[in-house]
Amino acid sequence: AQNAEEQFSVQNQQVVVLSETVAATQQQVQQLQESYYEIMNANKIFVDEILHLQKVVKAQHQVNNELINH
Amino acid sequence: AQNAEEQFSVQNQQVVVLSETVAATQQQVQQLQESYYEIMNANKIFVDEILHLQKVVKAQHQVNNELINH
Amino acid sequence: AQNAEEQFSVQNQQVVVLSETVAATQQQVQQLQESYYEIMNANKIFVDEILHLQKVVKAQHQVNNELINH
Repeated sequence: AQNAEEQFSVQNQQVVVLSETVAATQQQVQQLQESYYEIMNANKIFVDEILHLQKVVKAQHQVNNELINH
Repeated sequence: AQNAEEQFSVQNQQVVVLSETVAATQQQVQQLQESYYEIMNANKIFVDEILHLQKVVKAQHQVNNELINH
Repeated sequence: AQNAEEQFSVQNQQVVVLSETVAATQQQVQQLQESYYEIMNANKIFVDEILHLQKVVKAQHQVNNELINH
């Protein structure tokens, strides 16, 4: 059987490895959060462009109607 | 050198801190997953609006062609 | 009070549970990263379709102007 000193050493290494894994995971989560903000900014632009296109297309529809009835 | 009791105490604190960090990371991941579902819902709306715009623009193109050839 | 052997056993279980939680968190982060790439691909298509619609709508606007001035 291991003595307390050896058991401590083994467990200490496990905690060190685990700490490193957690730090790496946190960095990935941080990057994903930054990516999320980029996506939200892109989505705002999509909403603006789609709303603008809807407005222009609606105006053209009215022009077409006037041209047809002319 | 530390005795087993002291080593246990130090390592126990490390495990407590690590547990808290992991819990915080999991909460961030949970929020990112909810954000992902929101993005997916927004994207469905974008697809619908873009498809609708394509349909309307195509119909207007045909009206324009008829007006030109008239 | 516990002896070193018992303390080691309790802490060992904590480290095992923590390792499993970290592994599960990493898997969730991996899936979120894949979801992010899917969103980025969808966004590229959105950009292309919106740019195409803007082009077509602009061309139709010019046709409309010519029809009105005709």
